[in-house]
Parts: sequence; structure tokens; C-alpha cells
Amino acid sequence: AGTSRQREWAHHGSSMFADLTPKEMMAVRDYLWSCKELGLSSPRNKDLKKNNILLMELYLPRKHEALRALDRGHAKPPRQARVVVQFGNQAQPNITEYVVGPLPFPNSHQIMVFKGNRPIKFESRPMSLAEYEHIQNILEKITQKAHKVLLESTGFTFRNCTDRCLTFSDIAPRGLASGERRTWIMLQKFVEGYFIHPVGFEVLINHRDLDPEKWTVEKVWYNGQYFDSVEELVDRYDKDELIKLKLPEHDEQDLFSTYIPRGHSNTPTNIHGPKLVEPQGHRYRIDGNFVEYSGWSFAYRVRSSAGLQIFDLRFNGERIAYEISLQEAIAFYSGHTPAAMQTKYIDAGWAMGTVDFELAPGIDCPEIATYVDLYHYYDTDKPVRYKNALCIFEMTTGMPLRRHFNSNFNGSYNFYGGLENHVLVIRTTSTVYNYDYIWDFYFYQNGVVESRVSATGYIHATFFTPEGIHYGSKVYSYVLGNLHTHLIHYKVDLDIGGRENSFETMNLKYENLTNPWSPSHIIQQSRLVRTQHTTERNAAFRFGKKFPRYVHFYNPNQTNKWGHNKGYRIQFNSHANSVLPRGWMEEKGITWSRYPLAVTRHKDSEATSTTIYTQNDPWEPVVSFEDFIRNNENIDLVAWVTVGFLHVPHSEDIPNTATPGNAVGFFLRPFNFFDEDPSLTSRSTVIVRPGEDGKPKVQRWTPEVIGHCVSDKPFFYNGTYSSI
Amino acid sequence: AGTSRQREWAHHGSSMFADLTPKEMMAVRDYLWSCKELGLSSPRNKDLKKNNILLMELYLPRKHEALRALDRGHAKPPRQARVVVQFGNQAQPNITEYVVGPLPFPNSHQIMVFKGNRPIKFESRPMSLAEYEHIQNILEKITQKAHKVLLESTGFTFRNCTDRCLTFSDIAPRGLASGERRTWIMLQKFVEGYFIHPVGFEVLINHRDLDPEKWTVEKVWYNGQYFDSVEELVDRYDKDELIKLKLPEHDEQDLFSTYIPRGHSNTPTNIHGPKLVEPQGHRYRIDGNFVEYSGWSFAYRVRSSAGLQIFDLRFNGERIAYEISLQEAIAFYSGHTPAAMQTKYIDAGWAMGTVDFELAPGIDCPEIATYVDLYHYYDTDKPVRYKNALCIFEMTTGMPLRRHFNSNFNGSYNFYGGLENHVLVIRTTSTVYNYDYIWDFYFYQNGVVESRVSATGYIHATFFTPEGIHYGSKVYSYVLGNLHTHLIHYKVDLDIGGRENSFETMNLKYENLTNPWSPSHIIQQSRLVRTQHTTERNAAFRFGKKFPRYVHFYNPNQTNKWGHNKGYRIQFNSHANSVLPRGWMEEKGITWSRYPLAVTRHKDSEATSTTIYTQNDPWEPVVSFEDFIRNNENIDLVAWVTVGFLHVPHSEDIPNTATPGNAVGFFLRPFNFFDEDPSLTSRSTVIVRPGEDGKPKVQRWTPEVIGHCVSDKPFFYNGTYSSI
Ligand SMILES: [Ca+2]
Ligand SMILES: [Ca+2]
Ligand SMILES: [Ca+2]
Ligand SMILES: [Ca+2]
Ligand SMILES: [Cu+2]
Ligand SMILES: [Cu+2]
Repeated sequence: AGTSRQREWAHHGSSMFADLTPKEMMAVRDYLWSCKELGLSSPRNKDLKKNNILLMELYLPRKHEALRALDRGHAKPPRQARVVVQFGNQAQPNITEYVVGPLPFPNSHQIMVFKGNRPIKFESRPMSLAEYEHIQNILEKITQKAHKVLLESTGFTFRNCTDRCLTFSDIAPRGLASGERRTWIMLQKFVEGYFIHPVGFEVLINHRDLDPEKWTVEKVWYNGQYFDSVEELVDRYDKDELIKLKLPEHDEQDLFSTYIPRGHSNTPTNIHGPKLVEPQGHRYRIDGNFVEYSGWSFAYRVRSSAGLQIFDLRFNGERIAYEISLQEAIAFYSGHTPAAMQTKYIDAGWAMGTVDFELAPGIDCPEIATYVDLYHYYDTDKPVRYKNALCIFEMTTGMPLRRHFNSNFNGSYNFYGGLENHVLVIRTTSTVYNYDYIWDFYFYQNGVVESRVSATGYIHATFFTPEGIHYGSKVYSYVLGNLHTHLIHYKVDLDIGGRENSFETMNLKYENLTNPWSPSHIIQQSRLVRTQHTTERNAAFRFGKKFPRYVHFYNPNQTNKWGHNKGYRIQFNSHANSVLPRGWMEEKGITWSRYPLAVTRHKDSEATSTTIYTQNDPWEPVVSFEDFIRNNENIDLVAWVTVGFLHVPHSEDIPNTATPGNAVGFFLRPFNFFDEDPSLTSRSTVIVRPGEDGKPKVQRWTPEVIGHCVSDKPFFYNGTYSSI
Repeated sequence: AGTSRQREWAHHGSSMFADLTPKEMMAVRDYLWSCKELGLSSPRNKDLKKNNILLMELYLPRKHEALRALDRGHAKPPRQARVVVQFGNQAQPNITEYVVGPLPFPNSHQIMVFKGNRPIKFESRPMSLAEYEHIQNILEKITQKAHKVLLESTGFTFRNCTDRCLTFSDIAPRGLASGERRTWIMLQKFVEGYFIHPVGFEVLINHRDLDPEKWTVEKVWYNGQYFDSVEELVDRYDKDELIKLKLPEHDEQDLFSTYIPRGHSNTPTNIHGPKLVEPQGHRYRIDGNFVEYSGWSFAYRVRSSAGLQIFDLRFNGERIAYEISLQEAIAFYSGHTPAAMQTKYIDAGWAMGTVDFELAPGIDCPEIATYVDLYHYYDTDKPVRYKNALCIFEMTTGMPLRRHFNSNFNGSYNFYGGLENHVLVIRTTSTVYNYDYIWDFYFYQNGVVESRVSATGYIHATFFTPEGIHYGSKVYSYVLGNLHTHLIHYKVDLDIGGRENSFETMNLKYENLTNPWSPSHIIQQSRLVRTQHTTERNAAFRFGKKFPRYVHFYNPNQTNKWGHNKGYRIQFNSHANSVLPRGWMEEKGITWSRYPLAVTRHKDSEATSTTIYTQNDPWEPVVSFEDFIRNNENIDLVAWVTVGFLHVPHSEDIPNTATPGNAVGFFLRPFNFFDEDPSLTSRSTVIVRPGEDGKPKVQRWTPEVIGHCVSDKPFFYNGTYSSI
């Protein structure tokens, strides 16, 4: 176990990674608002030609500074904020990022620049509430013109609609080239689960101009047909010069898109199913953003730009990773309507880190979980509290961590031993409009960490046309569930016992040997072949190529008791593949997606593989991961991991994609890091041996009776298997 | 939901798949013993030249007969037993399999033959207790001769050893060619966890002769050196003409191979961790071997030859699979000692189905599980009861099955909906000497079935020599954990809504389209490409080749509400690869291992892909899976699934391989089988909407309060995310 001083430094240092407090946010806001030369105003002002704060979050200390505090007890560097400012109110509008500090009393701001001084184009900014209001306005105008078309075709309208209203979903990216801002928008019935109620009407709006009065309609798509304007649609509709759509009469009784239970099964579900209890209380400790469980300790953070991060992950005081963090989630679609063909969601651009809405006890996390509120400052003039947005809990997996029955091969046994598998879970979610991603890290008692994302929520669906069948399944009389690929990117800054790490892959090779005890025979067996990957280019593995059997990170200067370099493996649980040909248009924004694994050398300036600007300008991104793998600066390795899966929707995705089978991720597994399984510290082990008197003798270190909620009876084991 | 008549037939028919009762076993035994011409005697007789029953288990009814009972309510075919008889007491010893019936009053026995009338060589039989006693005897003789060598080298001896005793593990296969029966045996310290205490002494014993007096020592391996006899070893040892081994003094305090807790972690584990409770009782029903849960119903069985099987799997009365069953588990090793190089464990030959020892409540399964005793008749003269050998339980995964937060994008929400993820688990284990496999089937509420095997127990380890480093990791001062590949084979007789099924694979292909709304641009997107696989050869996928993105089984005659063929997918969770070059010696016994997936046409005569005889004669197996894929008889498809993983042992495998990250398997997932997610029947759904008064309005169908063991407070959800 780590020394108490190590623990103290880790505990003390964890606050370096803590998200901004509401107080800090307000201080930063007030400071920047006081800088008159910035000319900031509230984002609540509907004018698009204004300067305002879009996003504010913790600016991470540089790694070597943080490590001085964590490893040597030095003073912590001052806290700083990263602030994204939109300058709309100037001749050449732009986005600028600032570092503001020191907190809690900021007095300076510095411009941050991207590699190569790439400017952040104003058109690449995420959508704001103000811009959506103008989108709403222009849609009202458009649908007013097309009122009759919509009413006759769908029975629904956009305005003055009482209980037969339309709503919309907007598609990204917004155009075909850098600097554009024109969006395909789909109309949908505004009912519970509107995402799966497209009505066959899509419109392309150019909203690049900061004067919404100058926004234009560039195309309309109605029932499989393209029009250059709403007027053309209406005119041809009136003249009967198009194929009219007539949706079936809307049926209020059709529960299709809702959660309302229907039908019956052969066992009761109107009583509560199995639940988790903690008979003797929590076995973990949380202090602020510092968590301890079993041998583990770590700090966590949920950044507004992209979500959950783990820092300074240690086991028994030894560092395993400096950072494990979610970078990006994308879903690239195929289809036949213009909205479907255009959809390439890159979710950091949808404020993926801020949409971590409330977790329901007993559903999203167990009732016994610890729930934590989070705060975001995004497209707002005040910090926003997200109640119970994060949960931490311990659970049983209903499975042993290890067990062995040592038979005596004659009806009895030498011993039985077992240890229940418990795991600590930290969880947030991101509801990116239709989809709900569940972000989990699991900390097992044996030194294994699992990162897992589960997909649920509504599918992104488009209006069904006959050609649609090549791009998914029909899931409702006029709805296509469009095929798409989910890819998730993680940064895994392993620091196996320190920053100096090496990376190797292991494969098997058949070898032919003369059988030493029967020389006329040949033995065929597999031999371990290790390959060192000493350059970044050499350590970037492409999708479609054979992936090594083991990928192994180790400390070349530290060995375990048996002389092996202390190491960890990454084990993938993924069905991912790339989504577009290399270098093709939007693929340039997601160059990380070329690699299930790429190992780079750490740089503070390569903090993230993506930005919140990629969604609206994937064509000329300000950060391109490909740039990270062009040099070989040091030996502080960072693994960048892409996982994901192909999703061809099917009827069972209605009403929602369900989590079973839709979870991918990776394991970090010790590989000769410890001298033996570190879960041997657990006092929850139970050992049974046949006693002198033949009766089983139970050796255990936990209370004999668990408690009346689980069982009043003491543990009993018989052990023998006998003739009857 | 299925009709009550369907349910009745399924329920009634389940007994066709029920394992033999002890009474039936005794009736079969008594009947066969009464057939004087068989000349059977008890296996407890130590003479190897005897005729006796080795194994007895249910003989499955032919499928079309069983289906008449299950689908039309016809009379069930008579129950029969499969009996394996060893005829050692005759000039040409052999093994014969009989079908004995009808039960419970058997009066006839018929010889079963394998394809091509292949005889079962006597040398291919599994080891019996009687044979092990003779092995013990010859080892005593051998070690008596080598007493001094062993004592000086290891401090341990085989006889008269009190607390410093040696034991042994025997390696298979037993030779290099069909008809041989000679076994490498490793000596180990007989301490808790002896599997990881090899002492550097291995001996090759030829025990083919049925007269144990004629058994011979063919080779000895000691501390890296080969000898032709024990005498040669002893002689050269005495003359100092070899490299002597001197193990470090045995340290009783060294807990290395034991389960005894040691060390400390930073949070308490001497209290009980989270446990499962059932606040309002079971939500599943078990009647004999018939199980119902949510929409599911199935029958189960645990055959002595290979373990857990599921039959007549239905959801809402519709059949999804006729049989899902474990076939085989193998572990093929590499190494540098003769035992290591020889180890190719093929576990059905080690009575994998009978070693399902007692499950410990709270460790192997939750305390709330239903525990079931199993009975086996194997190498015995009476049925043997395995207490609590199978468990069935419902658990929460601590995760939603589905959830969605429907934001209004302005601090509030339209609705929140969620359903906790509960799953029914059926579990057995197989402790095949050192290893403990945990066999699970998970039945999710949304029509998904997961099959999963988790590996735990002791690794198979050999004495460390310097060259060993190419075959694994050193895990103790003189112990190598040898690399090996685990492969598991399953039979998945999907009957999607009946026997007539089709099989297709789905892949993606990039397509270039002229952008219909901007003709100067090209759209690149993925299109679904479906390939029908209409022959067995065409539907056999090799390891090393690209595996299709989706593998889809469907009923060509049935569609769901939206016109799609009702279907299921198999989704793999596996890191498997083949273990030997195609056609190489022992590979001929495991030809199923060439294919992650092979789809054949059902034949009653192709009931299993392997036999209990393969372990001791993999070179000329009586069943070769490769034979199954040579023709295309009908359209009742059977999927044969191979999963597994490469295991390079590491220090954290001490004392045992742990389950996290060491689980592989597959999902059966509905793909347009239902009209919508069938878990919509669940009344455990919770929906929250903002009420008229602004307060959240909770809609639910389960009791508001779960109960004092979990929580006394009613469910509460706030829903808003608001500025502070
Ligand atoms: Ca670099
Ligand atoms: Ca690193
Ligand atoms: Ca065939
Ligand atoms: Ca079938
Ligand atoms: Cu999806
Ligand atoms: Cu293994």
C-alpha cells in the first residue's frame, strides 16, 4: 500500500483537476465582463452580432507542474479557466479562447492559440440558443408558406397547432465546405419521442449571415422530391405537379414512440426486481473529486466541452495513468433523404459535456449510489446546476472475482475458495438530442479498469423512401432507422509507475521444433513475438489492418518481483471500423478515427484530439489528430483509443436503442505490474476446508451473517459430492 | 404473448430435455447389469480388464419427434439413456455406446454408431479413478527410486512425506499418434494451490497395457534435462553428471498459491459489499427444468459429457432456438518443458459436464439465487449428487435497459423515461482440475440472450527454464505461467419462428453519389450489402479471414409488422484465433476450431461437434466437425460458434486467473424479429413529466416505495437544470 504521504499528496492534489465551482465561474465572468475592451454582453441577447462568453471550464495545469504537486508535495499551480468567447460584433467575427486566472480572483486573460496559429472560424462555432430562436422564426415563416402542404400531407402544422404540432431536428455538418453555415432541418411530429416521427419534409437553410433577416432557404425536400424554394414546392403542390404525400391519420392510441408499457409477459414486472443494498454501508470514500476504493485512488472531472475525465489514477499509491478521458463521440449516417445523407454528428460540437442531465435513482444508477451535482457555464450568463448528474457506486456483478473448487477426486475436496466480484462505478450521461450515451468507468479490485460507453435513447430516423432499404430498416409505416457507425475516442495517458514508459505489441508465431523426447516427430507450437514500437508512426494502428494480440505499456525502469517490467495492457471491446475513406472531406475533422490505437508522446499542447468546432467545420479543423503523430519528442506515452460499433437499426430499437449488446469500451489490465493479484488484500475472501470432524470449516474475515435484508443465515458450504 | 396452449405444450415438453433422474440412472444400471452377455462389473473394481459403465446420460429425442410434442401437443417420445460402456475384459477391448430405453423401465439396448462406423478405440477413453490409482502406484515406484533426487532438489517427496508431499498433474493428449496411451506427468508440491508448484520433474509413462505391471517409464525430464529412465537420472545424479536443481527452502509463510488475504487497501473490505435483494420476491418461475422469465421460456439440462444446454427457447411463445449448448472447451499451451509442449487440453475428455461442483452462495451466485442439485453417473456405480451445482437468479446490472432525458433545451424537460436493466442468469461451473470455467446464459428483457464463459481458477504452470520466457511470464521464483489459447465451442440451433431459416451476412460498402442538392459535389456514404449464404461451405467463416459485420438468421416465411423478415443476429464477444495449422496432428480432433462461425443444416446424427474421446485421440477422432459442412440437406440451420482468447499469464494470475476481462461469449440479438422492443411489456418503467403545477409527475406501475432494505423514500426526480 502507498505511504500516507503519497496518499496525502494525491488527495491534496486532486483539487487541481476539480471543475470550476459556481463561484469561480461567476468570478471569471465578472472579470471578463469588466474588461471593457472585450465588449461582452449576455448570450441571452438575441442579437447574433454580439460578443459573449460561450463556454467556461477549468484550464488544466501543465502536467509537469501538476506532477510536482502530486509526487513531491510542491505547491499546486494556480487554478485557471479556459473561456471560449464569440466575437460576433466586429467586422471580422471570430472565436477566441482565453486562459483566465488566477482563481478565485482572476486578473488576467491570455489568448490561447492552436497549432500553426489556425484561427477559429466564426462559422465553426456551436449553435446557441439565440441562433435556434432565429431558426425557429424562419421555420415559422417557411411553414406558414407551406401550411396547406403540411396540413394536408401530415395532419400537423408548425404554428397555431394545439395538439397537432410539428417540431424539428437540425443536421450537421452545416454545409459542404469550410466557412459555410447552412443546415438541413427535418420536420417531425411534436409528440413524445418526436425523433422517430419525421414527416417527409426537409429544408436547407443558409444561416451564415449574422443578420437573420438575410437567411435564405436553399432547398426543400418533400416526399422524395427536391425544390429550389418553398414557393416552388407550394406552387407545384397546388398545381398537382408533384407526388403528394398523405400520412395515415395520426393515431393518439399508437404508443409507438413512447415509454408507456403495453402487452403482457408470463411473469410479473409490477413488483420491484432485484436491487442492490449495502448491508454495512459504503466501502468507498469520496472527498470532493477525490475517490478511494479498494487499492484505487483517483480524481475526476466532467469538462463541459467533452465530459468525464479521470486523473492521477493510482493503485496502492503507484500511478497507473495520469489521465483517462473522453474526447469525442461521433455517429456518421447513411440514407436517402438529404438530411440522412448529410448527418455526420460530431458530438463535442453539441456540448456533449454539458448535457449530463439528472440521473434517476434505481434506473440510471442504483438507489444506493452517491449522486453528485455538476455545474456548467455554457451559452449562459450564470452557472447552471445539473442535479445528480454524476453517480458513484459500488456494485456486485453477481459473479466471483475468482473461485476454485479443489477436488480430491473422490467425493470430497481439499479446499474451496472464492471472492465475490465487486466493482466501483463512476457514471455520467450525455443526452445529445436523441441519443443518450452512458459513460462508465469500472474499477475492479484486481487492478483492472474498464471504460465502457452504452448507447440508449432514440435513434436518429428519417422519412422512409423505397431506396431507404439499403440504409437500414423500416421501423414504422413511414420511418427509416438509418444505419450509422458510432465511434468514441478516449485519451489514455498511461503513466505506468511514472512518465517514462515503453510500448510493445505481442503476437504469436508458430514454430516447428524437433520433439526433444521423440526426435522423429515435430512439435508445432506458438511462440510469443514482441515488437517494440519506438516511433509514433510505428505505434499508430489503422482500422482494416490486423491488430496485435496484446498491446503492452510498461515501465522500462521498474520490474515486479519476478523481474518483468511493470506493465499494463489495453484490451479492446469494440466492433469499430472507419467511417469514410482517408482524407475525404469530413474525414479530415476526425483523423483520430483512422486508428483503433495510436500511441503518441505527451505534449501539453496536444491536450485533446478534437474541439467543439469540428462539428461545424470538419473540413478544416483547428485540431487534427494526425498532426500528433509526426514526431517523437519524449517517452511520456499517451494511448488514444477508438472504440465503436456499426448500428443498423431494427424494430427493437423502438422506442429506444437498448443497452444490452450496445456497449463498447476497453479494459486496462495489469500485466506483471503487481507481484500477485492485488485483490488479495480483500477481506471478503471465503475459504472452506473439510474440518477434522469432516464438517466444513469456513475461514472468513467478514461478519458471518450479512443482515436480515439479504440473509439471516450464516454462509454454509457442504463441499462433498456423494453417491446417493 | 403466446397462447396458453403454446405455454402448456412448452411446459409439458420440457421434461423431454430433463436430465436422467437418479431413479432412472439406477434403473438403466440395473437393466444393463442384468444383461449377462455384457459382463458388466463395478468400476470400483481396480482391474482395468473389466467391462463397466463409464457414463450415462439422457439420450435426446430426435428433433422432429420432440417438435411434434412441443408444437402440436402430441405424445412425447419415450425417454432413453445414452450409456458409454468400456469393454476392457475382451481380446479386442473397445468402447461401445448404447441407447437404452424406454425409461423408467428399460428393456432394450441398441448400439449407437458414429459416422462411417468408426470404432471408438479403447485407448481414446477418458481416465478412470481405477487407472489413476495405478498411476499413483507407478509414481510411487518411480519416486522411490528417485527419492534422493527429489528430496535434495525440492525438499519434498512422494511417499512417507507428512507435510512435505508431492502430488502430480497429468498432461494430455497421451502420446503422439492414435492408439497410444502414454502420459507426461508433472510433480508438484502438494500444498494449497499445487497447480502452481511444479518442481522441475516430469516423467513419461506408457500405460497403454491393461496390465499395470507392464507399464513403463519412457522418459524423465529433470531440471531441463532428458533421461531415458529413472535409473539413468539417478545414476547421473549420483555421479554428478547433470545439472542439479536446488529449490529454495520451502517457506510455509509464503502465501503465494493460497487464497489467504494479505496486505492492506485504503478502504474497508472486512464488511460486506453490496448485495442483491429481491424486495418483493422472485419475478421468475421454475418448474423442474422449465424456466419462465419476462417473455422467455426454456428448458435446461446439464449433460455429463459437456455441460449446460438450453432447449426450446421461446419469447412470448415464439421459438427462437431449439438448442443452445456448450460443446467443448480447449486450452492449447506452449512452453519449454515436455509437459508444457504436450499440453493440449480438450476438456470434454475430462468429464467437463460432471465437474460442476457446489456453488457458494454470495460468491459463485448471489445469496438470493435458486440453487439446484445435479446428478451424474460417471465412473461410478451409483448416481452422484452435486449439491447446488446450478443456480438461477435475476439480477440488476446497475444500468438502465433504456433511458432518455427529453430536454426542452431551456432548463426543463418534456419527459424523462427509464427502465432498469434486469436479467435472468442460469449458471453452472466446470472445474477441470486447475481451471474453473463459469458458464452463463443471460436472458435480457428485450429479447437478447447472452452466452458467456468466464475463466478463473489456477493457471496451468510449468517449471521455469530460461527459454520459458518466450512462452509466458515468470510468476514465481521457479514457475512459468505458460501461454495458451482458450477456445469454447457452442451449438446454436436457431429456429427463428420455426425450422425453415435462411442465413445472410451484412457488410458495408462505400458508394459515391452525385449530391442531389449540390450536383458539383460528391457524397460518400456506406451502403448495406447483403449476401445470402446458401451452402454450408459458403457459410463457414475461417479464423484469420475478415468476419462479416453482421451475421443474420431469419425466417424467409415470416415478417414483422414492417415487412422485414423476422430474424436474429449473433454478435461476438471474443478474441479468438486458431491454435494450430489446419490439418496438423492434434488439430484434426478440433476441426470446429477453424471457424468462429459455421452454419450447417441440422441433422440428428450431428448432435455434437466433439466427443469425450477426442482428448485421448485427437489424431483420429470419431467425430470430426469438418464432416458436417460437406452437404446442404435441408433448411434447418444450426450455427456453431467458437469464442475464446489468448491467455499470456502474468503475475496477476496468482493465485488465480480473475474473471474481469476474462469473459468471452456471444449475444443473440433480435433483428426485426419483434415489431418493437418486447421489454415494453415491463411494468417497471418509470416516466416523469413536468406537471401542470411545475412539479414532476411520476408515472409508474410498481409500488412507490421499494421497501426498507433498499429505500424508504419514494422515487423522486427533479428534471430541471437551472441557473444558480
Ligand atoms: Ca507527437
Ligand atoms: Ca504517459
Ligand atoms: Ca451437413
Ligand atoms: Ca435451426
Ligand atoms: Cu446508434
Ligand atoms: Cu487461461
